[in-house]
Amino acid sequence: MAEAHDAVEVIIAKRERRELSDSQIDWVVDAYTRGAVADEQMSALAMAILLNGMNRREISRWTAAMIASGERMDFSALSRPTADKHSTGGVGDKITLPLAPLVAACGVAVPQLSGRGLGHTGGTLDKLEAIPGWRADLSNEAMLGQLEDVGAVICAAGTGLAPADKKLYALRDVTGTVEAIPLIASSIMSKKIAEGTGALVLDVKVGSGAFMKDVESARELADSMVALGTDAGVTTVALLTDMSTPLGLTAGNGLEVRESVEVLQGGGPADVVELTVALAREMLAAAGRDDVDPADKLADGSALDAWRRMIAAQGGDPDADLPTARETHVVTAEADGVLTRLDAMAVGLAAWRLGAGRARKEDPVQAGAGVELHAKPGDRVRAGQPLLTLHTDEPERFERALASLADGIEIGDGAGFAPQSLVLDRVAQTARA
Amino acid sequence: MAEAHDAVEVIIAKRERRELSDSQIDWVVDAYTRGAVADEQMSALAMAILLNGMNRREISRWTAAMIASGERMDFSALSRPTADKHSTGGVGDKITLPLAPLVAACGVAVPQLSGRGLGHTGGTLDKLEAIPGWRADLSNEAMLGQLEDVGAVICAAGTGLAPADKKLYALRDVTGTVEAIPLIASSIMSKKIAEGTGALVLDVKVGSGAFMKDVESARELADSMVALGTDAGVTTVALLTDMSTPLGLTAGNGLEVRESVEVLQGGGPADVVELTVALAREMLAAAGRDDVDPADKLADGSALDAWRRMIAAQGGDPDADLPTARETHVVTAEADGVLTRLDAMAVGLAAWRLGAGRARKEDPVQAGAGVELHAKPGDRVRAGQPLLTLHTDEPERFERALASLADGIEIGDGAGFAPQSLVLDRVAQTARA
Repeated sequence: MAEAHDAVEVIIAKRERRELSDSQIDWVVDAYTRGAVADEQMSALAMAILLNGMNRREISRWTAAMIASGERMDFSALSRPTADKHSTGGVGDKITLPLAPLVAACGVAVPQLSGRGLGHTGGTLDKLEAIPGWRADLSNEAMLGQLEDVGAVICAAGTGLAPADKKLYALRDVTGTVEAIPLIASSIMSKKIAEGTGALVLDVKVGSGAFMKDVESARELADSMVALGTDAGVTTVALLTDMSTPLGLTAGNGLEVRESVEVLQGGGPADVVELTVALAREMLAAAGRDDVDPADKLADGSALDAWRRMIAAQGGDPDADLPTARETHVVTAEADGVLTRLDAMAVGLAAWRLGAGRARKEDPVQAGAGVELHAKPGDRVRAGQPLLTLHTDEPERFERALASLADGIEIGDGAGFAPQSLVLDRVAQTARA
Repeated sequence: MAEAHDAVEVIIAKRERRELSDSQIDWVVDAYTRGAVADEQMSALAMAILLNGMNRREISRWTAAMIASGERMDFSALSRPTADKHSTGGVGDKITLPLAPLVAACGVAVPQLSGRGLGHTGGTLDKLEAIPGWRADLSNEAMLGQLEDVGAVICAAGTGLAPADKKLYALRDVTGTVEAIPLIASSIMSKKIAEGTGALVLDVKVGSGAFMKDVESARELADSMVALGTDAGVTTVALLTDMSTPLGLTAGNGLEVRESVEVLQGGGPADVVELTVALAREMLAAAGRDDVDPADKLADGSALDAWRRMIAAQGGDPDADLPTARETHVVTAEADGVLTRLDAMAVGLAAWRLGAGRARKEDPVQAGAGVELHAKPGDRVRAGQPLLTLHTDEPERFERALASLADGIEIGDGAGFAPQSLVLDRVAQTARA
């Protein structure tokens, strides 16, 4: 049991740039979860952490204390190794959908606990819920059974994992303390470690459509998360990947499921295929199975088989038609030239405003709404050619969606245009603290 | 009316070291007072202010917004100018008691709204309440009438003055955000300016028994408060005065009243007389009456007359015997030599533990409890000679009081001992912001 401390003592220590002791961290996280430390005390501490930082030992201990606040899953009884993937969120980021069955087809189990979307980036569960009959909520036993039988499960995270993080995340959202790398890293990693995976691959997005706008801050976050995983005994690797333009050619729930199935069928956009395979290779290596090449499992249809079994196991019909929106609107190129910019944030906001995303947790989403891309940066276009198709059930939404796109599309002569690499950097496991 | 803002926007602005606009400050102080900004948001903002600071314009506006949150007193109808004094709190600091009637005897009205003590420094109202019959609570009319008739009033501050400060002060106390000079300065000055005085003299204490332990931080606080007074149109001057050892020869409620009356009778300890006269000169000068010498009014008995009228006007009997404690304990010198240190904090804690002060707002205090000094730093003493007499109604309190004195008394050979000046510095009015 944690030694008793005083909230003001802990706040003042961090305010004065001192290191917090293990005992102080254990106490303050536990006391906050129990309500013995008040919201106004934790928010003052969060601001002090944001401005004065925490070192690796402090962040590791903070993460461990958040994990200890709730239950922890255990997949050690499975016959296969496990690997998990987490993305910090991007526009058109449907990678989890083809990736989980692909890695399962390679012999590594993927327990993918996911969330719903808020704001301009979609949520994996929202996407899968576009499939008729598919259910996100599974019991722990059903989840374990599906992992053993199918090898992949994508479902809602239980409320018992890291409750301290849930409470703290809601507090940070209203107190201007979201943008603290130690708190972002420990929030993500406490949930992922509590989920019990043996290996973890992080996809840290960088660019206009991502939370991290530049490579330096993305690398700092990646370094911190890889260190936290390592300290918790989870083999962890991070890729920094571009999010200046949407991934693939779709942003929206049903639209992204359709594109994911194309990838599993051996087609689909090159960038989605590239990132899916790159992340699969990292997951397999981290789980000790780098003898298998995931590209083969895409080509031979075994990844598609795993997808069909995974969807069916959760009540979904893999052959059902996906919902489509009632109304569409086409955005055309205003000039001849090269598409030099198609901004991820602009497209993400447009998809959100069309009904693909939600502003508040309790809002519904439209399964068919979103944005379809007909060109990507670097493509040569002609005036009047379709660039985007907007989809929604409610045509009154077009106006605000178009407004968010206004500054997001640039066509030039292509001089000086350099295609952006998809994978920008890789952060591998470091020595333990 | 203040423009609408968002709490997170204001917090992030200060978190990122930006200046807050007048409109942001007006809005956040008003919204916090109304409850539209939550405690956890204000505490995050207070921590950002503590760590990132506010400039003179921001602090002036913050102070004005706290004043605007409540009522403001107005003494402009009085036939005399007004001057007020505020001390940041010290051990044995009974100066308000002789000072208010002395300045009144010089022709300047003194509306002294005071508080009760918390912790190791006594409260002015606690001291006066040792006088049988004396009442701290006056209506605004009674206060104005007494100011016109007697020229001096010391009474409890009404709850309608600067309610934003009251709420914020309680929040800072539990969130590790007390030690922010912009917030300390605006807290003191919002109350003093709302009290409606025309001139203000600040006694900023420095040393072990004071909130400010060193001259640099005391000067920073004084500079900030003098600037705030100036910006609000109140002539403001600050003296920085020593609080490494208690003021005078008493710490405790009835004991300090007795010593104050000795000063008004033309006697009393030299340091209390020196500081009373120095502060009186500053108040008279700030109120435009530097033609009068307060030393004359002490010598001719007119200050004592004003005291008697002031006490009687509030129901007190100036001739009544003061309560004395039931038990005493004498602390003697352990060696021959020079008393080189008699620590203010040690004596303050001893008086508090003897029953002169309170730990919680609702605790009672003992009128007779406290510490009497028989020697001051620099005095030559002989082994066995009485140094202190401790007074309390409850003899079980002696042990903890003695423990707090253990490291506070030093007797040496006097080599290298230099007497400490009482007035360390003076901070005068600066140009308006």
